[in-house]
Parts: sequence; C-alpha cells; structure tokens
Amino acid sequence: MSLIVAKFGGTSVATPQRIVNVAQRLVDYSTQGHHVVAVVSAMGKSTDDLVALADELNPNAPARELDVMLSTGELVSMSALAMAIEALGHKAMSFSGWQAGMLTDSGHTKAKITEVKTDRLIQALKSGYIAVCAGFQGIDPLGDITTLGRGGSDTTAVAIAAGLHADVCEIYTDVDGVYTVDPRLDPRARKIDEIGYDEMLELAGCGAGVLQARCVEMARTYGVVIHCRSAFSNEPGTIVKELDDTMEQAIVSGIAFDKSEAKVTIRDVPDNVGVAARVFSAMADDAHANIDMIIQNLSENGQTDISFTTPLADLARVRETGEKVVEELGAREMVVDESIAKLSVVGAGMRSNPGIAAKMFQTLADNDVNISMISTSAIRISVVIKADELERAVSCLHTAFGLDSDDLFEETMLSREELAAKAAKGR
Amino acid sequence: MSLIVAKFGGTSVATPQRIVNVAQRLVDYSTQGHHVVAVVSAMGKSTDDLVALADELNPNAPARELDVMLSTGELVSMSALAMAIEALGHKAMSFSGWQAGMLTDSGHTKAKITEVKTDRLIQALKSGYIAVCAGFQGIDPLGDITTLGRGGSDTTAVAIAAGLHADVCEIYTDVDGVYTVDPRLDPRARKIDEIGYDEMLELAGCGAGVLQARCVEMARTYGVVIHCRSAFSNEPGTIVKELDDTMEQAIVSGIAFDKSEAKVTIRDVPDNVGVAARVFSAMADDAHANIDMIIQNLSENGQTDISFTTPLADLARVRETGEKVVEELGAREMVVDESIAKLSVVGAGMRSNPGIAAKMFQTLADNDVNISMISTSAIRISVVIKADELERAVSCLHTAFGLDSDDLFEETMLSREELAAKAAKGR
Repeated sequence: MSLIVAKFGGTSVATPQRIVNVAQRLVDYSTQGHHVVAVVSAMGKSTDDLVALADELNPNAPARELDVMLSTGELVSMSALAMAIEALGHKAMSFSGWQAGMLTDSGHTKAKITEVKTDRLIQALKSGYIAVCAGFQGIDPLGDITTLGRGGSDTTAVAIAAGLHADVCEIYTDVDGVYTVDPRLDPRARKIDEIGYDEMLELAGCGAGVLQARCVEMARTYGVVIHCRSAFSNEPGTIVKELDDTMEQAIVSGIAFDKSEAKVTIRDVPDNVGVAARVFSAMADDAHANIDMIIQNLSENGQTDISFTTPLADLARVRETGEKVVEELGAREMVVDESIAKLSVVGAGMRSNPGIAAKMFQTLADNDVNISMISTSAIRISVVIKADELERAVSCLHTAFGLDSDDLFEETMLSREELAAKAAKGR
Repeated sequence: MSLIVAKFGGTSVATPQRIVNVAQRLVDYSTQGHHVVAVVSAMGKSTDDLVALADELNPNAPARELDVMLSTGELVSMSALAMAIEALGHKAMSFSGWQAGMLTDSGHTKAKITEVKTDRLIQALKSGYIAVCAGFQGIDPLGDITTLGRGGSDTTAVAIAAGLHADVCEIYTDVDGVYTVDPRLDPRARKIDEIGYDEMLELAGCGAGVLQARCVEMARTYGVVIHCRSAFSNEPGTIVKELDDTMEQAIVSGIAFDKSEAKVTIRDVPDNVGVAARVFSAMADDAHANIDMIIQNLSENGQTDISFTTPLADLARVRETGEKVVEELGAREMVVDESIAKLSVVGAGMRSNPGIAAKMFQTLADNDVNISMISTSAIRISVVIKADELERAVSCLHTAFGLDSDDLFEETMLSREELAAKAAKGR
C-alpha cells in the first residue's frame, strides 16, 4: 500500500468524458489498495475565459481580485472530479487551496508556498476518501485567496506529495514523458525513462517544456519522486528522482532548445571598471528584463563588446534602455539579432566525462553550424546559433551523443514516423 | 452618511456592461458619502451551466460537492464587480461567503445561516473600500462550503444588513417593485410604494415572486428595511418595513395567484378519529409532498370528503400514496383536478375592516367565478377557483378593492399598454 499524488492538467480534465476517465484511473488505484490524492487544473481553456473577462472589466485589475476569479476554475474541476468518482461508487472529497492547507505568502498571481497543513487531507485519506485538491491556489496570512502563477498546479502537487511523504507524485500531461529532444523537431527523439533532478532542472531551464523548473526544484528539496506521464495512455513516462551517481549514467540525457530569445550586443564600450554592472543594473531596474547568457570580449584598445540574450517579450524595453546606456557609456552602438536559437546539451555524466564540450563544438563545426555564444554549467553546455541552423544542429548532436532511438532498445516498437505522429498529436 | 447593502441578481450582472453599470451605481453611493456593501448572484445563467455539468457527471452528485461547484458562480461575479469598481477609480474588495463570515449549518444545498461575523467587512468599510460579497453561500462548522438554496442571495443580503445594522437593504432585480397584481395578468396593476412585512410574507407565500418569503422573514426578525427595485432604472421601487398600524393603510395591498398547484379530493372517507392524521402523515412521510390548503366537509352518514392542494411537482407521488390511502381507509375514490388556480387577497387593513371576505366572495359571485376552497389568515383570504376563470377573477377584485392605477396618482404617467409592455419586457 502506497500513497500516490496524481496531478492532472487542463487538457486531461477538459471534458466530462475525460474527467470520468481520470476518475476511473483514481478509483483503480484506490481498489488496488493505494491512498490517492488528486490535484487538478482548471478544465481546458476555462481560465482563459476568466482572464478575458477580467481584462474586459479592468486591464489593470487588482491582483487580489484576479486571484479570486482565476481560482474558481480549479474549484469547478475538483468538485466535478469528486462527483465523477462518487458516480463510480467510491468516496471522494474535494479541497480548495485553503481547505487543503496550502499556505502561501501574499504575492498575488505569483504566490510562494510557505507551508502545507495536511491535517484535513490525512483525515480524509484515513476515512477512505479519495482526496481531490485544487491546484494553482492557496491562502495568505490575511485569509485572502492567492494563485501560484505559471506551473502552479505542478507545484501544488509536489508540495502536497512532500507534505504527505507520498511514494510518488504523478504528473499527468498531454505528452508521454520527457524526450531526448522535442520530437516535433527530430522524430528520432527517444523518451527518457529516468532522469536526475539536476538534469531535469537544466532541461527545464533551457526550454524543454513538460515540467516547470519550479516544481522540480521543490521535488529535489524534499526528495519527491516525480513520474511525468500521459493522461491518455497507461504507458510509463519519465521518472524524475535522485539518481545514484555511482551507477552508470548516460553521458548526455537530452537536448533542449529555445527560440524565444534575442541576442543583444553593445559594441565598443570603453572598458572601465563597473561598465558591466552599469549595463546589467539598467537592464534589471529600468528595463525589468530577464537576462540569460552573458559574454564579454577581451578588451582591445581599451574597448570591449558586451553581449547577452533576453526573451523576445522583454526586447522592446531592452532596446529602449540599451539606447540610453550606449549614450551614457559612450559606446559605439547596440546590435540586436532576433533570429537566434539557444541549444543546450544536458547530462549528469558530463561531470565525470571530460571532452564533451570539445565533442559538441567539433560536431557542430563538422556540420557547418556557427557558434556565437557559449555558456556552461557542471552538467550543461549551451550555445547560441543561428535559428535556421537549429534543426541541423539538433540532428547531428542527437546522433553524436547516442540519443537516437535506433541505437537503443525501443520499448514501444513504433516506427520513427509513428513516434513523430504520436508526439505531434499529443501536443 | 448611511450604510447601504445592495443586492444584485443574476440578470443585473449578466454581462460586463451591466457589471460596469452596477459598479457606477455603487461608486455614486460611495461618493455621496455612504458606506456600501454589495451582494451579488452569479452572472446570468452561469449557475445553470454548472448544474448541467454536475448532472452529466453524476445525477446523484454529493451535496457537499454540488455546493463547491455552485458557489463558484458568485466568486466570479463578485471579483468581476470589484474589478469594475476599481476601474472607476474607487477601492473595492470582494468577500466569499466564508471570508464575509457567513456561518451556516451543514445542510448542504439548503443551509441555514447561524451567524454573520462581520469583522472583515467592517474593517474594509472603515478603510474606505466598497465591500462586494458573494450571495447564496456560506461555510459550515467543518469548514465546508455551503449554499443557501432558493432565494439565497436575497437572504445573504438581509443577513449582512442585519449584522451591520444597515440603514437599508436594497434588492435590485429585473422588475421595478412589488405590484398590486402581476402586471402580465392585469395591465392595471399598480406598483406598491410601501408594504409591511406581514403582507409581503403573505404575498410571497401566495405566489407573488419578486421577494422570497425567507428573506422577508429574516428582515422582519431583525427589523431590516428592504427596498426592492429595478437595476435598470433609478425609479424608487417598493419599501418593505414595519408599518405603523395606527396610520391609515390600504385595506387590501395586493392580489397574488398561483397556478402551480392541483386539488386532490378523497371522497367518502369513513369519519373515524385520526382519519385526517392518517391521510396527511402519509402525504408527508411517504409522498414527501407539500400540502397547502386543506378542507374537510361536514360528516354525512358517517362519511366525509377531504380535499387539499399540492404542487404539481409533487402530484405523481401524491397520486401513488393517495391510492394506497383510499384502499387502507375504505374511502370511495381519489379525484384530482389539475386545472385550478389559487387566488389570494392580502392586506393589513383587513384586521380592522370586517366584511372583506364577504365583499370578495360577492364580487366573485357577481362575476360568475365559482369558489371551491377557502382559507384565511388575519391579513389574507385565499380561494381556489377554476384556472380559466383566474383572469376574470383578478380583474374584478382589483377594481373592487380600489387597486386600479387610474384610481390613484400615477407616478410614472405611463399608459396601461406601456406599463404592460414594460412589465412584460422586464421579466
């Protein structure tokens, strides 16, 4: 007998029939003797409708009221799921964020969980109920409703799993796991069976969707085992857990990419003390921009180039602030390149295998892919390349690092075309 | 400076534009120096959609979960209204049932209010906020969400008005007040400016919609003045309050009717002790039927007839139980008449004016309306007549008791046709 926390995203509960399917899965777990806690997102796109309503009434709606409105979607889906479970003849009880003891700070629309008081959940489980919790929401010390922001429901699930010391936190989504690379880009992509927290964090941080870095971080902190899998099949997905470093690991686990950033270069900046600090404090304080990779060239004739990447969403503000910084510092100009892609290779095996970076750069060079920026961590190497060279770059690296599905046991025995079609359909 | 509680029904907040109109009305009150608490129902027919979803998932959905689901409609409308108020530059804060301190018993889907803890509302009002409360909902001693059932939002408003000792509880609806008779039946109907609690209760109990008996009862208990008026105009509506009995009052305030009942007669029942008790305990315990008017004929030859009225909705169960009772008691037969109407004349002035009943019966007789049952209270006379004679009966009584609008100052100066059109449009 184990305790399972199972989280279902919006697409998994988008229709009454899908809700019934989810209910059946939970009832099966329960009849197998497990304690079950479900965490649900709002049905389908219902949250979008609420956002549209709020926007029509007040484009600068108070965050407190936005949270009240947005939290209702999960209240509907949790009670709907509890009803569907009861219709199958099993006891179920739903819990809103405040009923489930999800205590947060007062950071409306992006609140942080401070504590999970699991008393009511434990009482319900002990009484034989399947507990159904609203994802994405909590309550602050004033007694006001909060929401957790992007990826909030996954974080709710991991927090509850941590609070209850669950055996596993299953995260059901519309894809069937974490892949060595996005199958839409390369049909040879292979599902990863197991991955460590650190690698998953690096992949999440480098643009591989599926799991948000935030919930993986919390899972790592509390040692929660995550099973990321499809709500539309019974195939196992990807397990995220602490991997034993002494076991043989894949050198490279996966490849992530991100086409949502631009590269900004400020050229011929006088190379004085504090110049970089001035540039990036302006970007943080004035432009409120997220800055990702940063490189600074060697100084030549007392001048240097400073380059960084920033999300396209922040680019307008970065341009404006950048023009001022150029003038203030007496630099030559600001150059923006929007047609770039960031490509990252991630693997815990890198720690003990030198030469991965060299192999990566050589492979790219052999395939005429030009690298314009590089950044690394202990288990990740990221490069910025031209966007139109991304597909070629992914393909050659996927092969070079032995990730192609033909090199390995192919569990589902699907052809590459079938895998690609399945992956495309699932998204 | 006064404290105003203003309740808005579903049609009054059915669209974003209507929500903005409500917000403007509240902001106007506030800038005039009043403290303002709004109570809202769910937007338009949104609750119906939730009921349909619940019914699809589980026709016997647990009441606890139904309440969670149905309570979300008011959470959306309250936060929407708070956003709209803030868009007009005024501070607003929304409160769910549990945040507004609406404590109830655990009678899910028809909970009764046990206490209103107004601390948070008072704090918000003192800080200059317009408080916006969810109608229809509360929280029980277990910390579970409850809903108050039919007419719940009106009851919420009156309970809050009582708890805050508000100067008035305005109930905004889609009609502009309480009329001497339903204007759809008789275009000479006249809006009543003031009416006492008792008369309003009798009218509500006899089928005149607008206000539910439940909220009027609570208003009477706590001395809350209700102002029932239209959300779509600024005309005053009908004030419901304790009327000074020493002042001259209209003998008859209004006429109510109800076509949703059937008349059931059990004929030739042996007139033994306990026969009536047996009939009506069977109807209560076996048929779970609401029984309204009851008459028992004088005994003749040791046999009697027992007649009563019951809602058409309960009739199937009443028929079934009635057949058994006929057999058990050795009565002759059960006769059901579904084409009846109950017609009631209500007025506090009846107390001090004898002969009202006689005048009513004579007027009906003069107009060839046959009376088949009669029941009375201190301020009401109800008769059961044939449904197809209802319009004629209402018309002659409306004139006989001086209720026709032409007999009186016609404030809005509308023609009968315009009044009828307006009333028809408003419903």
